[in-house]
Amino acid sequence: MGIKKHILVIPGDGIGPEVTTWGKAVLEKIGQDFGHEFTFDEALMGHAGIEATGNPLPDETLAKAKASDAILFGAIGHIKYDNDPSAKVRPEQGLLKIRKELGLYANLRPIMLFDELLDASSLKPEILKGTDILFFRELTGDVYFGEKKRSEDRNTASDLMIYSRYEVERIAIKAYEAARVRGKRLCSVDKANVLEASRLWREVVQEIAKQYPDVETEHMFIDNAAMQLVKNPKKFDVVLTANLFGDILTDEASQIAGSMGMLASASVGDGTGFFEPIHGSAHDIAGQDKANPLASILSVALMLEISFGLKDEAKKITDAIDKTLKDGYRTGDIADANTDKVKILGTTAMGQKVLE
Amino acid sequence: MGIKKHILVIPGDGIGPEVTTWGKAVLEKIGQDFGHEFTFDEALMGHAGIEATGNPLPDETLAKAKASDAILFGAIGHIKYDNDPSAKVRPEQGLLKIRKELGLYANLRPIMLFDELLDASSLKPEILKGTDILFFRELTGDVYFGEKKRSEDRNTASDLMIYSRYEVERIAIKAYEAARVRGKRLCSVDKANVLEASRLWREVVQEIAKQYPDVETEHMFIDNAAMQLVKNPKKFDVVLTANLFGDILTDEASQIAGSMGMLASASVGDGTGFFEPIHGSAHDIAGQDKANPLASILSVALMLEISFGLKDEAKKITDAIDKTLKDGYRTGDIADANTDKVKILGTTAMGQKVLE
Ligand SMILES: CC(C)[C@H](C(=O)O)[C@@H](O)C(=O)O
Ligand SMILES: CC(C)[C@H](C(=O)O)[C@@H](O)C(=O)O
Repeated sequence: MGIKKHILVIPGDGIGPEVTTWGKAVLEKIGQDFGHEFTFDEALMGHAGIEATGNPLPDETLAKAKASDAILFGAIGHIKYDNDPSAKVRPEQGLLKIRKELGLYANLRPIMLFDELLDASSLKPEILKGTDILFFRELTGDVYFGEKKRSEDRNTASDLMIYSRYEVERIAIKAYEAARVRGKRLCSVDKANVLEASRLWREVVQEIAKQYPDVETEHMFIDNAAMQLVKNPKKFDVVLTANLFGDILTDEASQIAGSMGMLASASVGDGTGFFEPIHGSAHDIAGQDKANPLASILSVALMLEISFGLKDEAKKITDAIDKTLKDGYRTGDIADANTDKVKILGTTAMGQKVLE
Repeated sequence: MGIKKHILVIPGDGIGPEVTTWGKAVLEKIGQDFGHEFTFDEALMGHAGIEATGNPLPDETLAKAKASDAILFGAIGHIKYDNDPSAKVRPEQGLLKIRKELGLYANLRPIMLFDELLDASSLKPEILKGTDILFFRELTGDVYFGEKKRSEDRNTASDLMIYSRYEVERIAIKAYEAARVRGKRLCSVDKANVLEASRLWREVVQEIAKQYPDVETEHMFIDNAAMQLVKNPKKFDVVLTANLFGDILTDEASQIAGSMGMLASASVGDGTGFFEPIHGSAHDIAGQDKANPLASILSVALMLEISFGLKDEAKKITDAIDKTLKDGYRTGDIADANTDKVKILGTTAMGQKVLE
């Protein structure tokens, strides 16, 4: 028996609309093939939201988000604001606010490796092979949400890096539960030799660890983790970390998967799940049919598995991507410069191939 | 005519004493060969300081530091404190305090690539080749030194990420001056799309940039920078960044040089310069004659060049290291697992080879 779900698509900025088009198309196809009824709505966020309503997260978008069963998001950000440090309203505020409003405190970023793409990475294939990491990045706390201040003379600026026990506990539990059914190893990353917030983080993780004696726990400083991730990515299974450190490490780790264009993430917590590529809005290639739609399609696979419990459907998608890559199709970002055996496709053609 | 300088050696913890022994030996040899008079003193810091006096930065050490012409430092940290998040006194406090007390606001970390070590990196040789980066990490501000708080019930902890205009200005000027005589490109790394401190950082760098129209300025978000550094390290020349981001990026970048065991750093500012390897105390191999002394020896080369203006002497050292590597000698950390053409040496033998 098929299920019935309502999905909100938020294309966002830059290449967002192009890639979510293909995520949505794949979802529709899965619905047809497996007899599920997926209904869709669309809403604005980020620069697109600001242009239309002056608000990076329009009220209507938030209302629709709360009413949906899952959200497929594209990308956010615009160069215009990046180079204007004094802008009051910014696209990113929309993303931060929706994370907070929906209680999306856990951001899961699996680093999967498609064998076909081993050569697209800047790391040596023998270093990469066998890498399989699941990041748990805390998403609604840290210096992202702590109080921001600017002195009256504008010469001093600050952000508060802050964590409370319950925030660390709830994501640590999620990460340990995942580690238990994966490789049974968890690495918690902090900077406890310098930061008080990290010392609390480590204390809490040490406590939760006691409830999971079957999982091997390691604590690592962020500087060392950033290094080890390049040196020997295979050594990681589940990585648990704070918002800022997670932001940095997961982008770095994207090189393991050959390109950011291949990585999806799931943000979950109290209510509706939120699924998005980890790549940004990439304005330099927006509207040129060059973007890699695979991360958006993989976001859909995560949605099916995590929010709807549809494992076979999710597998069908990753298999289709696998086959497309095996057949030699690549978007520009994942094409290995040294080989001419691959066929370079644009966004549309790549999306079509996966659909087929 | 030779010069006369007084150098304070602070061996610190873990492998610190082993590696500074060789840094000092090389300095003595350079003194003899070039007719300079180097005098030495020694002092405690970190865990070693705590053991002897209860203080990670004993008053005597600070007094000696201020009275010296340059400081050669080893490493800091002890596993005992790392896993005890509630420890009040920690080795790292000694390092942070001496940085602050001596006004060492600019930490220079050159990423040099010895051709012989191209294969020791996890990155592909063609990605690495030609990489030459000079990091300017701000060292006396940021979340490292902002107010730390723990709530009375101990359930909430915070650190203040804070910057003032003058702190950004003075290091930005140093970085631009260096860029001007290097590749004329400067990349400033921040997270201005989220953090107020980063927005101030970007504002100030944009202003200083105007005084250096001959240098091409780029602003990059830290997550993107962590990714680009692995993807295409060659694209960077001078990288300017805050304390925390610099800590993370430079450790990550150490993989470019094959190993952290190959990287030295210079901390400069208002007074006496401070020279140290970027590697840590590595307690797991301490006292086993396994540590790589090259970073400490390279620290000495930086000291000669930056604090004493002795370029030829510095070059003599890097040439000696180059030759030692060309002759096939390696410590364990930089030996390429796939080749059996190299000879693995311990700390002492490696130090001897370079001296010869
Ligand atoms: C756009 C930005 C606010 C965001 C973040 O830093 O969280 C992005 O980099 C991400 O990782 O989702
Ligand atoms: C030991 C620690 C406090 C220090 C830092 O984070 O600054 C170290 O990692 C470094 O990079 O010099």
